[in-house]
Amino acid sequence: MLVLGIDPGTAITGYGLVKDTRDGLQVVDYGVILTPKDLPLHQRLFQLHTELTKIILLHHPDAGAVEKLFFQRNVTTAMSVGHARGVVFLAMAQACMPVAEYTPMQVKEAVAGYGGAEKRQIQEMVRVLLGLDDIPKPDDAADALAVAICHLHSYRLDQYIAGMGDQ
Amino acid sequence: MLVLGIDPGTAITGYGLVKDTRDGLQVVDYGVILTPKDLPLHQRLFQLHTELTKIILLHHPDAGAVEKLFFQRNVTTAMSVGHARGVVFLAMAQACMPVAEYTPMQVKEAVAGYGGAEKRQIQEMVRVLLGLDDIPKPDDAADALAVAICHLHSYRLDQYIAGMGDQ
Repeated sequence: MLVLGIDPGTAITGYGLVKDTRDGLQVVDYGVILTPKDLPLHQRLFQLHTELTKIILLHHPDAGAVEKLFFQRNVTTAMSVGHARGVVFLAMAQACMPVAEYTPMQVKEAVAGYGGAEKRQIQEMVRVLLGLDDIPKPDDAADALAVAICHLHSYRLDQYIAGMGDQ
Repeated sequence: MLVLGIDPGTAITGYGLVKDTRDGLQVVDYGVILTPKDLPLHQRLFQLHTELTKIILLHHPDAGAVEKLFFQRNVTTAMSVGHARGVVFLAMAQACMPVAEYTPMQVKEAVAGYGGAEKRQIQEMVRVLLGLDDIPKPDDAADALAVAICHLHSYRLDQYIAGMGDQ
């Protein structure tokens, strides 16, 4: 199973593709989609959608996982993140992908074992779990990989519970 | 010039198409796009995008005008409206349409002459300006028509000022 994790934003959207193999988790690709500040909003969202669709068409992920943010600093930030999230959800729906959302606390619990983990600890756990030499950069890409890992852990747990039910 | 006005929302998005003719403003089409509550968010946004794209392909509007809301009641509402706005902006960008945004106050000033006008007054002015027998229903469609009228008034004013500069 290949999962596309997303940390959404209009200026910068992080993405991370993680695969669940018999030998553990494996990173397939990660990076960020940047849109120029001087472009009108609708053209920035067009660029975000186009770049994300290219990534989806290249890798054909089985599922999408998006960071769910409740506690935005203010309504303007919430609206701006909402624009990017809308476009991200749309690109995933157009590719017929199932989509899950996870709060930062859920991501922290899944990756580092507890919801109070600090950003640096999460990034270090992402590095270890994916068997990388260095912490993935920039932060938005590392965050997106963490969301993908969170989804794979939830999925594994669901499969395990379903398996127990069969016994 | 044909303008597509939009009052965006994930559950209900109002749209209104208004044309500027020598005999004044003329309504071309209006209505609402509804998405079912029981669908996952990404599928609702997919439906909104699909329906809006159909309307754009049918009428080929020259420009889009979208209501700009600063004072949402809370961040959850702002995020939800942001999702719909992101998808609306994207559909317009994909059709290579120029897009303008107007605050509710700008819309009220353009349609009723002053920013403190009440909802009912705006709706009545929309009816009069478009030469309709009844106030367009539902409210979201009337609001979308008001945004389209606002854009046509701004455009006329810009043309007038540009014309004065030529003299």
